[in-house]
Amino acid sequence: MLYCVEMQVNIPASLDASRVEEIKAAEKAKAIEIQKSGKWPHLWRVVGKYSNISIFDVESNDELHQLLSSLPLFPYMTIQVTPLARHPSAI
Amino acid sequence: MLYCVEMQVNIPASLDASRVEEIKAAEKAKAIEIQKSGKWPHLWRVVGKYSNISIFDVESNDELHQLLSSLPLFPYMTIQVTPLARHPSAI
Amino acid sequence: MLYCVEMQVNIPASLDASRVEEIKAAEKAKAIEIQKSGKWPHLWRVVGKYSNISIFDVESNDELHQLLSSLPLFPYMTIQVTPLARHPSAI
Amino acid sequence: MLYCVEMQVNIPASLDASRVEEIKAAEKAKAIEIQKSGKWPHLWRVVGKYSNISIFDVESNDELHQLLSSLPLFPYMTIQVTPLARHPSAI
Amino acid sequence: MLYCVEMQVNIPASLDASRVEEIKAAEKAKAIEIQKSGKWPHLWRVVGKYSNISIFDVESNDELHQLLSSLPLFPYMTIQVTPLARHPSAI
Amino acid sequence: MLYCVEMQVNIPASLDASRVEEIKAAEKAKAIEIQKSGKWPHLWRVVGKYSNISIFDVESNDELHQLLSSLPLFPYMTIQVTPLARHPSAI
Amino acid sequence: MLYCVEMQVNIPASLDASRVEEIKAAEKAKAIEIQKSGKWPHLWRVVGKYSNISIFDVESNDELHQLLSSLPLFPYMTIQVTPLARHPSAI
Amino acid sequence: MLYCVEMQVNIPASLDASRVEEIKAAEKAKAIEIQKSGKWPHLWRVVGKYSNISIFDVESNDELHQLLSSLPLFPYMTIQVTPLARHPSAI
Amino acid sequence: MLYCVEMQVNIPASLDASRVEEIKAAEKAKAIEIQKSGKWPHLWRVVGKYSNISIFDVESNDELHQLLSSLPLFPYMTIQVTPLARHPSAI
Amino acid sequence: MLYCVEMQVNIPASLDASRVEEIKAAEKAKAIEIQKSGKWPHLWRVVGKYSNISIFDVESNDELHQLLSSLPLFPYMTIQVTPLARHPSAI
Repeated sequence: MLYCVEMQVNIPASLDASRVEEIKAAEKAKAIEIQKSGKWPHLWRVVGKYSNISIFDVESNDELHQLLSSLPLFPYMTIQVTPLARHPSAI
Repeated sequence: MLYCVEMQVNIPASLDASRVEEIKAAEKAKAIEIQKSGKWPHLWRVVGKYSNISIFDVESNDELHQLLSSLPLFPYMTIQVTPLARHPSAI
Repeated sequence: MLYCVEMQVNIPASLDASRVEEIKAAEKAKAIEIQKSGKWPHLWRVVGKYSNISIFDVESNDELHQLLSSLPLFPYMTIQVTPLARHPSAI
Repeated sequence: MLYCVEMQVNIPASLDASRVEEIKAAEKAKAIEIQKSGKWPHLWRVVGKYSNISIFDVESNDELHQLLSSLPLFPYMTIQVTPLARHPSAI
Repeated sequence: MLYCVEMQVNIPASLDASRVEEIKAAEKAKAIEIQKSGKWPHLWRVVGKYSNISIFDVESNDELHQLLSSLPLFPYMTIQVTPLARHPSAI
Repeated sequence: MLYCVEMQVNIPASLDASRVEEIKAAEKAKAIEIQKSGKWPHLWRVVGKYSNISIFDVESNDELHQLLSSLPLFPYMTIQVTPLARHPSAI
Repeated sequence: MLYCVEMQVNIPASLDASRVEEIKAAEKAKAIEIQKSGKWPHLWRVVGKYSNISIFDVESNDELHQLLSSLPLFPYMTIQVTPLARHPSAI
Repeated sequence: MLYCVEMQVNIPASLDASRVEEIKAAEKAKAIEIQKSGKWPHLWRVVGKYSNISIFDVESNDELHQLLSSLPLFPYMTIQVTPLARHPSAI
Repeated sequence: MLYCVEMQVNIPASLDASRVEEIKAAEKAKAIEIQKSGKWPHLWRVVGKYSNISIFDVESNDELHQLLSSLPLFPYMTIQVTPLARHPSAI
Repeated sequence: MLYCVEMQVNIPASLDASRVEEIKAAEKAKAIEIQKSGKWPHLWRVVGKYSNISIFDVESNDELHQLLSSLPLFPYMTIQVTPLARHPSAI
């Protein structure tokens, strides 16, 4: 079951620079782990923004929320989730 | 080169029903043709809307506009184009 | 799997009054049929609007879109779908 | 009398981490207490957000405000209240 | 129980002028009737708009929706309802 | 001359807690003083928000601004002012 | 007492062209009449739009609404009214 | 003096197809004429939309409005004008 | 050449109070100086806001930007600039 | 391939003043370097804002993102990217 997920990162200026680097490294590791599981088949950078547009392929709404909230950057992201269905003209 | 494209269809109520069916059939044929060319690799329905979220893979901005404006439903769609780049954490 | 669905009805002024009544009657019948199936457990009127807030309980995004697009008023509604997950503080 | 309530939590980055944990624990306890009273029959997590969509069942606007403002996270939430009425097609 | 209600009137240009006059006369009669009942204690014109800001005093959400949807202009209005509570600094 | 005024309070997290209490107490005293003068005939809490909807009855735009900017919470409020006129259907 | 008023004209495409010309001529005459009275001291065109930004100088909210609603284009305008006060740095 | 101008075309569905073609041909001729005068140095299509982003180089606000309102599509366009100044880092 | 300029002041809570007073005093002096030059013919307070609506009369876009960015509060203001033209019905 | 890029700068008040000056100097140097490469043919200041409207001429979405994210002010900017195509009426 597919979802389009747009994640916009807003790290507060007050956060310590080394802490930010730690979180980003952990985020990258986690993102790679989820992609390898097959549940995050597409991850693209939005040009000009600290944002991504992603496609997730999961079993349920609960599984999607569990994955998204496991991301180390989750507390600093505004996330928009759009459920997708099969399109009648898709080949 | 990838773009995320969201197309929302708004057919005016004044359009003749048989004309609408003609346009929709032509749209479907054109959508299939572009998908077969490899330039429209993903086409999903947005749940609950007469909208789609699509990924296009084209050579240039001009090619993308030429493809989108060739769609029979183009005059009746509000289209949002988001240029995508490679994400540093994508595998 | 639960979704919060807000449907706002906008019937164009150009639609024939008797046709509108037909569609509304068909909508009511369809809404009752889906509710009886257990897939539409809650349906509330938004005060002051020709809108409803509903909870759907379905197997997948595809099933939800199939149900929503089967509604006779679907062409005249703006629908907002919010996927829901279990809340950690829910009892 | 039913209301749909959407609560979005925005805890400022300047708040002390242990204070945040205290508030969250108190919030959870209070949420469970109100649910047990029957006045908060539904509480769902919005997928991808630190938000919930809830249904409250109270005697009056005043009672709803008293409940919401008693939540420990109240100062850190943006809350949207939608009054609900019986829908003519609800079974 | 009080609610602030903002009603914005948008009569479609396609509606027949004499039909519009009929609806407006019926609206005025109905508005006066509800005011006399004590359930619509304040009705003000918004300067520069075909809108009003009103205060309703009713027993329940259902009663408010029943009153608003009984207005002859209801199909042509966009209505925003804000539930009100007692303010701790009100005298 | 009447105005509908919506005041939304946003106290920055950085403000000292005891200073906040001082300001709130001064705000309450000032709000009561203005109400007693007859120039602030209605003050309601918006359910679920740290906001109010108020009606002011003043001689001029200048007097209204003088009253609003005299409120101790003025620097921390977003205020929306809507001028009101007599409604032709008001009784 | 001053108000900034922004008027945006939206004449529906269905209106008869000669009727539109009549309304525009009547609007111009009325606008000149009100300006001559001294109550509409400034009237500017917004570049690129069928809109104006105006300053009105009137005795009350009621007088302003009476003037605005007397304009022949009133039914086809979206009007935004901003009450103005004396600025402490104005000379 | 430079301005960034975004023009979005919305031709109403009720307009006669041959009349639309006439207007578009006249628009093209007028756009070419203004470009040749040097006052419209850049004209680009926005990908996926019936819109353009343009740069105008004129003597005054009045000249810009006179040019824009002389366009045959002017009654069917929503135009956004942004005045530009020299950037301190421009070479 | 005229422009309508709306300036909304948002001084961050972290700024030192005496520094704020200094900036405000400098702002007032600068505002009076520009008004005396004839380039800022109107300056009004927006009722209920720390905002002004102003009319500037300058030679060019560049001159307007130079004036606005010379204001001591410039770093703390959100400014909206609307170019104005002569209105055909203005007397 | 052309893109219209609007960059709005929002430097947090908490950033050290000398650090801000360093970043601005580095930004200016980088902006001049990219302009000299021919990939940033136009750079304009938006009147009244700490924003620019720019035209970029690059080979791909990836190159554009690489250029924008190399700007020293990138972490403090909100950037809007609009892909442009050739306009059929452009000369």
